[in-house]
Amino acid sequence: MHRYRTHTCGALRPSDVDATVRLSGWCHRVRDHGGVLFIDLRDHYGLTQCVVDADTPAFKAAEAVRSEWVIRIDGQVRRRPAGTENPELPTGAVELSITDLEVLGAAAELPMPVFGDHDYPEETRLKYRFLDLRREKLHANIMRRGAIIDSLRRRMREGGFFEFQTPILTASSPEGARDFLVPSRLHPGKFYALPQAPQQFKQLTMIAGFDRYFQIAPCFRDEDARADRSPGEFYQLDIEMSFVTQEDVFQAVEPVLRGVFAEFADGRRVSERFTRIPYAEAMLRYGVDKPDLRNPLVIADVTDAFAREGVTFNAFKTLIGAGGVVRAVPAPGAGAQPRSFFDKLNDWARGEGAPGLGYIVFEEEGGALTGRGPIAKFVPPEVQAAIAAAAGVGAGDAVFFAAGPEAKAAALAGKARIRIGDDLNLSDKDQYAFCWITDFPMYEWNEDEKRIDFSHNPFSMPNFDHEAFLDLDPADHDTILGIKAFQYDIVCNGIELSSGAIRNHRPAVMEKAFGLAGYPREALEEKFGGMLNALRMGAPPHGGIAPGVDRIVMLLCNEPNIREVVLFPMNQRAEDLMMGAPSDVTPKQLRELHIRLNLPQKPA
Amino acid sequence: MHRYRTHTCGALRPSDVDATVRLSGWCHRVRDHGGVLFIDLRDHYGLTQCVVDADTPAFKAAEAVRSEWVIRIDGQVRRRPAGTENPELPTGAVELSITDLEVLGAAAELPMPVFGDHDYPEETRLKYRFLDLRREKLHANIMRRGAIIDSLRRRMREGGFFEFQTPILTASSPEGARDFLVPSRLHPGKFYALPQAPQQFKQLTMIAGFDRYFQIAPCFRDEDARADRSPGEFYQLDIEMSFVTQEDVFQAVEPVLRGVFAEFADGRRVSERFTRIPYAEAMLRYGVDKPDLRNPLVIADVTDAFAREGVTFNAFKTLIGAGGVVRAVPAPGAGAQPRSFFDKLNDWARGEGAPGLGYIVFEEEGGALTGRGPIAKFVPPEVQAAIAAAAGVGAGDAVFFAAGPEAKAAALAGKARIRIGDDLNLSDKDQYAFCWITDFPMYEWNEDEKRIDFSHNPFSMPNFDHEAFLDLDPADHDTILGIKAFQYDIVCNGIELSSGAIRNHRPAVMEKAFGLAGYPREALEEKFGGMLNALRMGAPPHGGIAPGVDRIVMLLCNEPNIREVVLFPMNQRAEDLMMGAPSDVTPKQLRELHIRLNLPQKPA
Repeated sequence: MHRYRTHTCGALRPSDVDATVRLSGWCHRVRDHGGVLFIDLRDHYGLTQCVVDADTPAFKAAEAVRSEWVIRIDGQVRRRPAGTENPELPTGAVELSITDLEVLGAAAELPMPVFGDHDYPEETRLKYRFLDLRREKLHANIMRRGAIIDSLRRRMREGGFFEFQTPILTASSPEGARDFLVPSRLHPGKFYALPQAPQQFKQLTMIAGFDRYFQIAPCFRDEDARADRSPGEFYQLDIEMSFVTQEDVFQAVEPVLRGVFAEFADGRRVSERFTRIPYAEAMLRYGVDKPDLRNPLVIADVTDAFAREGVTFNAFKTLIGAGGVVRAVPAPGAGAQPRSFFDKLNDWARGEGAPGLGYIVFEEEGGALTGRGPIAKFVPPEVQAAIAAAAGVGAGDAVFFAAGPEAKAAALAGKARIRIGDDLNLSDKDQYAFCWITDFPMYEWNEDEKRIDFSHNPFSMPNFDHEAFLDLDPADHDTILGIKAFQYDIVCNGIELSSGAIRNHRPAVMEKAFGLAGYPREALEEKFGGMLNALRMGAPPHGGIAPGVDRIVMLLCNEPNIREVVLFPMNQRAEDLMMGAPSDVTPKQLRELHIRLNLPQKPA
Repeated sequence: MHRYRTHTCGALRPSDVDATVRLSGWCHRVRDHGGVLFIDLRDHYGLTQCVVDADTPAFKAAEAVRSEWVIRIDGQVRRRPAGTENPELPTGAVELSITDLEVLGAAAELPMPVFGDHDYPEETRLKYRFLDLRREKLHANIMRRGAIIDSLRRRMREGGFFEFQTPILTASSPEGARDFLVPSRLHPGKFYALPQAPQQFKQLTMIAGFDRYFQIAPCFRDEDARADRSPGEFYQLDIEMSFVTQEDVFQAVEPVLRGVFAEFADGRRVSERFTRIPYAEAMLRYGVDKPDLRNPLVIADVTDAFAREGVTFNAFKTLIGAGGVVRAVPAPGAGAQPRSFFDKLNDWARGEGAPGLGYIVFEEEGGALTGRGPIAKFVPPEVQAAIAAAAGVGAGDAVFFAAGPEAKAAALAGKARIRIGDDLNLSDKDQYAFCWITDFPMYEWNEDEKRIDFSHNPFSMPNFDHEAFLDLDPADHDTILGIKAFQYDIVCNGIELSSGAIRNHRPAVMEKAFGLAGYPREALEEKFGGMLNALRMGAPPHGGIAPGVDRIVMLLCNEPNIREVVLFPMNQRAEDLMMGAPSDVTPKQLRELHIRLNLPQKPA
């Protein structure tokens, strides 16, 4: 017989009845039913009920065990007495009659129990992560995370991609976030940086001729924590492809994400086709570049309606006159809502810094649509009808308005759309609704500095004839501000999983792109000379994307906090409470690394 | 037609003749055959010969391209003229008649060519790694590395293991090597460390109840570079299992390694069963704890023979009298070697610090075995026969002797075994010969400090009844020094792939183990309190191993230098010459991290 087990705690079935078996595991729960002791023995694979009577030799040993002790049990499998089967447990038809019991690892008093659903403070849970991880939900999340990553890998390989490992000790990168630095022992005064992403390495892998790259890549950013991002490290499904257009990237990534979401959706629907929405359209229709398409509401522009002569609502007219816009958020069925619904939305809008949230409620009166509400009387019936038509609403519905400079009005409308959708419970939450956001503008107007600047990623390829681009006059602001980039985001349920782009692989086009944004060639050479050099030695057209693994797992585990899907996470203060990191180091270590501490002055 | 390619450069076959196709790739070689231009177009998938005549419109564009330019070629597939097929190339039956050509990425003058086998200095190769990686051998090595890792993962999963990701920003670990440190921005004066190995995390994963762990784990050690280890980072196939004995670990790991080696062996044999050799036996028979079993020579102890009364070789007798040993290394067939063979071995031994390497050559004289050589006359015939029998040699063979204190004699004999095996060309190199080294001693005698100390890993479980172990008297040196640990190495072709162990999961046994080595309980608590705490809350018996991925890949690529199997390696000075790491950082970065530089004084 094996030293520790012949079966796991999830293995026994009625077909094993009468077998003599050995199990090892944790005492999940010990119940004393007066003369009969029940031990629910738990391991990774399941739970088996074990029983011992007071008049058997093993009773004394069994009496001594406590929750979370690790024990070995020998015994005979028997059918549970009729009526005591547990159909929810795979082993629930049988139990183990204990003949021998050995303590393999006793447990001292526990700072938190494993059995039961009681909540414990974050700090306790993180400090005793090894206990928290024994609990069913967290244990299942971590196993699910592994299965999701396995599935991503398999799908990428099936799609013709190869996995590579890029360096973790590397040079400071121009990603824009703060680097973690590692002092060099051999090179006094110099530092390695941990990669914010393997962006340059994956591009170099393409320039080296490897064609299809992916990596479940650890990434490091010294940024303050957010619920959906670990402080410190996170993982992305890093992807890069050569000789591709944007369409090829979409065709490669969509089946991987759709497949993995369908595999782990637990019955939720997954978008059959990922809607493609140009950035400008997303900002108009959803007021945001990461729309949650589970929410069916679509914002309409009603600036023209409010600008009409007959309209006497001067607050909007003044804003329109100053170049502003009015956006309409439909609220289907809101006519049946009490006054408090409208008041609360108005209060919410004030909290968002808006003067309020105007609205019109539509009713049918004698076969015609009539608006009511504080604004209605300033809007002639035919304009009301035009607004209702634009917003796609009818009798019994309402429309809310966000007015102001375009960016501000769009943002407020976007937030109102979410708020109204939630308040009216319009979203079908049982789905994963994907979209691509495309056609990001390459440049934007920097109002503070009165100049053209990059809008998103300066290294994306402009969607513009290359030769014509090289001939652009920097003074031709309208043309330049109209240029889109081959850049795209993928969004699921309102969460941005990743940005991606076709890269600018032509040094001349890159120099021009930076020149148009006012960066001299020398600045580009100084900061990105290494990359430019590589691009000058035979670079293929290439592009990619890098969906966040932790976010995918959060979505598929339905967890709002990343700490529920990471094995050993840090807390919000970037501390590992279990291992005690970060920690003090010795003066010798500091000397070897050629640094000394420069601590903040303590207040006197 | 796709913007860049309808086929890869490895796809075209006779069945494609007459098809109009589009390829993109690198100009591997351009040959001008006077009026006809040949371009060998290369991508990740293969090479296609493309042809253009001087009298066709595309000729002008084709004439301009140079080696390593990235181009798109449109053309018609045609059969190569009879006699010009290249059977070594999968596309070698056809060629592409160029009708259109577009430059996608020109290349400036190259610091090293891609075509051809010429060697280039390490520094050039590393600085322009993206060019070096385009070369056939290195490209193939890196792809092979990826395939090996995929295979390891698949085999681990099939063996019931689950993959986890453990933290990279963590606390300083007690592995013994030097840590890379990362200053904390949020916690002035404190530092994270990069993991030397996820040893504690994998044990905590077991204590958390996950049963079967593996990870292709990045590990970091700030040690000086060696040919078989990257400076900085390397990967290991990290494995840990709960409720197992040493035998279970062997049974889990052997099929994975045997399988992956057989898969990538390219016809070399792989050990059917991994020989198990106790440490003491390895030191005797091979003079080393990582024997290369491709070498068939086995060392014998002949101390008793030389100690016999009739022997008058006093150099050995004196050593034996002082507690030393004599080891015999057989040299089959060496009788046919010229005198210089023996002289060279003698010179080599002096270089190793030995007084020389005595030997006896055996001949047959009148049906009896007779020894000759400088030592023979001091050894009576019956003792010569005993030595020949012990070393397993006969007429025509020789035996070399290493004498001295046991450790020194064993080491010299071990080196002589390798040297003689090489000189006589005795190893069958077409194999991967595996063995387990087992039964490492738990303790050893520290002669300098006249005390008992740990021999290898203090955290391994002693192979000794636990209750009896707890009762051991620290003064009982003989018993303590005789204790073996459940610790093992796996060795392939003389290369140690990994150490592993059944861990000491019982806090009381661990305290006793440290106590016997003279460490007070407080010292243990201070250094390893976190781990001890976890072990006190219900820890299962567990153990594991962590074979080095880079070493496995080196063996399977037959490369002696790790830089030939790593995508973007650092040089021996721990510099990334391509990315320029490590590098200077800004004063602002240092301030944010609460450190300042402490540079070595420049000589005045």
